[in-house]
Formats: sequence, C-alpha cells, structure tokens
Amino acid sequence: MTLPGILVACGHWDPEPWAAPFRAAGRPVAIWPDVGDPAAIRYVLAWGASSAVFADLPNLAAIFSLGAGVDHIVGKAELPDLPIVRVVDPDLTMRMTEWVVLQVLLHHRRQLAYLGQQQDRVWRELPQPPASAVRVGIMGLGELGQASAKVLASLGFEVAGWSRTPKTLPGISTFAGADTLPAFLARTDILVVLLPLTDATRGIIDAKLLAGLARDGALGGPVLINGGRGGLQVEADILAAIDAGTLIGASLDVFEQEPLPATSPLWSRRNIVITPHVAATSDADVLAAGIQRAIEDFEAGKPLENLVDVERGY
Amino acid sequence: MTLPGILVACGHWDPEPWAAPFRAAGRPVAIWPDVGDPAAIRYVLAWGASSAVFADLPNLAAIFSLGAGVDHIVGKAELPDLPIVRVVDPDLTMRMTEWVVLQVLLHHRRQLAYLGQQQDRVWRELPQPPASAVRVGIMGLGELGQASAKVLASLGFEVAGWSRTPKTLPGISTFAGADTLPAFLARTDILVVLLPLTDATRGIIDAKLLAGLARDGALGGPVLINGGRGGLQVEADILAAIDAGTLIGASLDVFEQEPLPATSPLWSRRNIVITPHVAATSDADVLAAGIQRAIEDFEAGKPLENLVDVERGY
Ligand SMILES: NC(=O)c1ccc[n+]([C@@H]2O[C@H](COP(=O)([O-])OP(=O)(O)OC[C@H]3O[C@@H](n4cnc5c(N)ncnc54)[C@H](OP(=O)(O)O)[C@@H]3O)[C@@H](O)[C@H]2O)c1
Ligand SMILES: NC(=O)c1ccc[n+]([C@@H]2O[C@H](COP(=O)([O-])OP(=O)(O)OC[C@H]3O[C@@H](n4cnc5c(N)ncnc54)[C@H](OP(=O)(O)O)[C@@H]3O)[C@@H](O)[C@H]2O)c1
Repeated sequence: MTLPGILVACGHWDPEPWAAPFRAAGRPVAIWPDVGDPAAIRYVLAWGASSAVFADLPNLAAIFSLGAGVDHIVGKAELPDLPIVRVVDPDLTMRMTEWVVLQVLLHHRRQLAYLGQQQDRVWRELPQPPASAVRVGIMGLGELGQASAKVLASLGFEVAGWSRTPKTLPGISTFAGADTLPAFLARTDILVVLLPLTDATRGIIDAKLLAGLARDGALGGPVLINGGRGGLQVEADILAAIDAGTLIGASLDVFEQEPLPATSPLWSRRNIVITPHVAATSDADVLAAGIQRAIEDFEAGKPLENLVDVERGY
Repeated sequence: MTLPGILVACGHWDPEPWAAPFRAAGRPVAIWPDVGDPAAIRYVLAWGASSAVFADLPNLAAIFSLGAGVDHIVGKAELPDLPIVRVVDPDLTMRMTEWVVLQVLLHHRRQLAYLGQQQDRVWRELPQPPASAVRVGIMGLGELGQASAKVLASLGFEVAGWSRTPKTLPGISTFAGADTLPAFLARTDILVVLLPLTDATRGIIDAKLLAGLARDGALGGPVLINGGRGGLQVEADILAAIDAGTLIGASLDVFEQEPLPATSPLWSRRNIVITPHVAATSDADVLAAGIQRAIEDFEAGKPLENLVDVERGY
C-alpha cells in the first residue's frame, strides 16, 4: 500500500530538507510546480505559496505552514475549507526567546552606546536603572510571547502582556482586547511585538501607538522591538519617532518589504538594530520532523493540533 | 548615648551616598582622611583604601567592603585581624546576570556580525546553532556565577560550572578544583569568568587556559567573557588568541589597568566588546542600606554574614 503523498510548495526556499524525511519514510513527494498525480497528494507543506497550489487536489486533507505565522496562507482567495496547521516547536520558541531577551538587554544595558564609546576609546559609565525599574510590555501572549515573558520576568523586569482574550500568567500583568491597549502602552518602556499579522493587527505599530508608550520611564524614553511581522509596522512612523527622539531605540527583525531595500533609511539610524528575519530561524529538518510526527499522529486517528482559525486570521 | 561611628574610605568615589543613611540614623560619620576622634569609629566602609585607614582605630570591630570583590582589601600588609564583610546584594547579582546573559547572547546570536552587515546595508542570514548545541562554562560558582548559570540554563544552553569546592546544582554540570580545569575547559564553547581575584586565580586567563577551550564547538570557536577582575586576565594572551582566530570573540568588563588606557589594542578589535567596569554597578544607596542593616543586625547580637576568609583570599 502506498502512503498518502506530500506536496512541498515553499517559494524560494530549498524544498529538499522538507521533502527528505517524508521520502525516507516511503511517501510520494512532489515539489511544486511539478505536482505529478494530483490524486496522490493528501498534504501540502506550504510557505509563501500561490493559491493555485491548493486547487485541483481532490484528496487534499490538510495544509501545513512551514512557519509559526500563517499570514502567507490565510489571506488567499481560493483557500480550500480544510484544516491549516502551523508550526509550534520548542526549538523555534527558544530561538525567538533568545532574540527577544538579547534585544531587550541590548537596549536596557545601553550596549549600542557602549559600542560607540569603544570606537572612540572612551571609558565612561552611563546611568543604568535596574531591570526592576523597567517595564516590558509584550503584545501577543501566545507561544512566543509567553516564553519571552517568562525569561524576562526571571531577569527582574516588570513584565506585562496584551492579547485578544484574557490570560492569567504567574508574575505577569495581563491586558486583553483593544480597549485595554492605551493602558497597556502607557505603562510600557520596552514594547516587544510578537503578534500575528491579521486584518486586526496590520499596521498596528503606527504613530498613534508609539505616542501612547510611557515617556517617564527609567530608560529616558520608550524602545520598540518587533519580532512578529513587518506588516504590523508603519516604518515611516517608526523612523519619524526615532528621529524626533520620542522613541529612543528599536530592534526590528521583520519589515514591510523583505529583504529590506538598501535604500531604506532604517539601516543607518545608530539606535536601530536590524536583523534579517532570523529571530527564530529553526533548522528545516527539525521542523520537518515535527510536521511528520503530526501527520503520523493524524493518520493514527488523533486530532490535529495547532490549528489555525481562518476567520480570526491566526 | 551616641551610636558607634563609621569611617568611609572609598578612594575617588563620592562618599556621600555611603555616609548619608548612617548620618540620617544619628551615627557619627567620618570621611577619610579626616578621621576625627579615632576612638569613636567602630566600622570602616572601604573601597580601594590604603592600609593606613585601618591603623590606630582602637575600637574598630569590622570592615565592610563596598563591593562584592575584596581583592582591594585582603592583600594589604597591615590588615587588622577583624571580620571583613563583603557585599552580597540581589540588586548587584541581577545586574551582573543581565550583563552576562547579554554578552553570551550577543556572541551566540552573532549580533556584532549583524551590526557590521547593517552598516553595509547587507541582508544576509548567518548560520545559527540553537542554544542547546552551545556549551557555556562558568568559572566561579558563587553568588554571581550561580545566578547567571540558572538563567542561561533556562535559555537552553548546556551549562557547566567550575569552583574550588564541589557543588551540586540542578541542571548544571559541576567541576571542582584545579585538577578538573582541563576537562571543564575542553567542553566549553563560551567561557564566563566570575572568579574573585586571589593568589590562586591571578593571571588564570592566559594562553594556556585559552588553548584548552573547545575548538570543535557549534559556534566555530571559543568565546571569552570576563566580568570578574582584570587581574585574572593576561591581556596580551587574549589579544594574541583573538588575532590568531583561536578565540572568536570576547566581552571584557574588567582590565589589568582601569580605566583601560586609550593606547590598548583591545579597544579596536571588531570581535571584542569592552564595557567600562559597569557589569554590576548598583546604586550606592541600595548597597549602603544593606550595609546599614548588616550593622544593625550585628549590634542586635546576630552573627555577621558574607564574611571573607582572608587566608583563602575571598
Ligand atoms: N521573526 C521571526 O523569525 C518569526 C518566527 C516565528 C513567528 N513569528 C511571528 O510571531 C507571531 C506569533 O507567534 P505565536 O506562535 O506566539 O502565535 P500565537 O501562539 O498564535 O499567539 C498570538 C498571540 O497574539 C494575540 N493576538 C492575535 N490577534 C490579536 C489582536 N487582534 N489583539 C490582541 N492580541 C492578539 C493572541 O491572543 P489570544 O491569546 O487571545 O489568541 C495570542 O496571544 C507569528 O504569527 C509570526 O508572525 C516571527
Ligand atoms: N565587574 C563587576 O562589576 C563586578 C561586580 C561584582 C563582583 N565582581 C567580581 O565577581 C567576583 C565573584 O563574586 P561572587 O559574589 O560570585 O563571589 P563568591 O560568592 O565568593 O564566589 C566566588 C566563586 O569562585 C570560586 N573560586 C574562588 N577561588 C577559586 C579557585 N582558586 N579555583 C576555583 N574556584 C574558585 C569559589 O569557589 P567555592 O564556591 O568553592 O568557594 C566560588 O564559587 C568578585 O570577587 C568580584 O571580583 C565584578
């Protein structure tokens, strides 16, 4: 008996590490756009694929996103009414936690200023509040937001989080829903954004949001850290706030357009840190093994986990 | 009745924040070299003071170091045979933890290389192992080493520690004594030094030690992070290892000579991070309040805590 087949459709990424474990397990694997026998395909593994990928696959049972975010899938016009599964993986979660903790500490401890002093061979101590005097606010308290919140709280920061639905988390103040956003922002010195990109969150990091952050904080002004999606941010507004000094620093891993164009003024601001969408890059074979386990569990009769709610958008 | 008096002798530091809480509590406070009535002084609060400070104080009962390290006191020729108390304070411990975690993540996540790429407006992903593939080794498992070990382990690093006497710590491999140093170094990719400066540790970070670090690690070579004391390191050897590429990065907060002379070649190496002895700078009034509590407890009949063993040197 032939095992149900896989179609890998991952745009400009190398499909091989995603295909390999399935091939090794004896499954037919097709690589888009070379679909082969459409009837053989039961699962699509997708990243940034066109909606044509999902058409004309009569036996398609589920779609697997190759990443944690699904904005590359759920917006599509001709999406079949089938389960969509996203990546939730401890390896990915830990990597995002590393990136967030690094960026928070980098701004908190004024490491960019110290690197600047080093260039000038200047030995000078800069004022430094303890973490307990600094309020971190995390937008998005899902898999990634909660993991970062936990480590930041263990470092002594005053941590709060904001989500759509109410949450109770030990040692972390929580805010839920659009109505609570102003209060959440007003108590936040370092804003960490780990939201999904949806109709409700697109462009949420704009001039109005930035103006709502705390001005009286121990760091002398607010800091923005976005590890979510570029579509969440209005880069012109971030730049204006940086240039006005109302935002004293930023770390951005994601951008309106990726790769970030060489002409973007974001590159050259001395208090902005740019990383090239690498905050939580896991090895493809680690994530592929997780998807393989999920498919095997599904075929053994277990319900699919980490399902996306298409209405909600994440 | 007059309360027992205090002598503050803190070299070039501002004595006021150290003197203020004691004055407010109604104690006579003298500021070195203006001792006033020597018989009134029961406690000296010292940092980098000459040994003349401790002479001719007939009622001296204890010496308080204004920092965690006591190498500035215990080496002195004419040290009276009296209890020496050092600072152990959660504020100081958390600040050092922040600095260590920041420096470990900065090298682990190749942030210096990304900052370099940013300067050139280059969008390029660099290879990145997960924390679980990176072995951090902490020399000195005291107050500071243990706190750093805990957070680094919670971030997923493979953590080990080295101390003089054996320790058992959950989730951390431990090595004790000079005989185990080669094995400890051979399994270490990122070496964090949080040792006190003593006769046994002076110059311990030399060419031989650096040559003993792991070469086959996931980061492509070893990294050195020293937050202990400058006297622990041989800067010429660190520089030679950096220039030979056998050490791929370093973060140094402490130096053989402080301030680090402008002529030092350490300033200009692109894979060395220099901070001006600020890793764990607490506010003087926070630490002074702790010393005040310790003195009040002592006068209420409780034994002094955080005592230094002068023989041992820390
Ligand atoms: N830069 C990178 O390398 C990288 C890597 C992986 C992921 N990401 C991004 O990170 C995002 C988050 O990942 P995750 O796994 O943590 O997702 P998740 O578990 O689905 O969590 C999303 C969080 O956002 C909240 N949220 C969603 N819409 C909201 C709204 N309109 N108002 C308030 N809160 C809202 C959710 O609230 P509820 O809890 O109430 O549902 C939830 O707490 C992904 O969607 C992806 O875009 C980036
Ligand atoms: N850069 C800064 O801003 C800053 C600020 C504060 C402190 N410091 C430095 O950090 C040092 C450590 O502070 P701490 O509070 O953690 O001190 P601690 O509690 O006394 O711990 C010292 C640790 O080093 C170990 N050790 C001492 N001599 C050793 C030897 N010969 N071989 C192996 N291990 C040895 C001790 O082993 P045992 O556990 O077996 O005794 C202990 O684990 C201070 O002495 C100070 O120099 C720097």
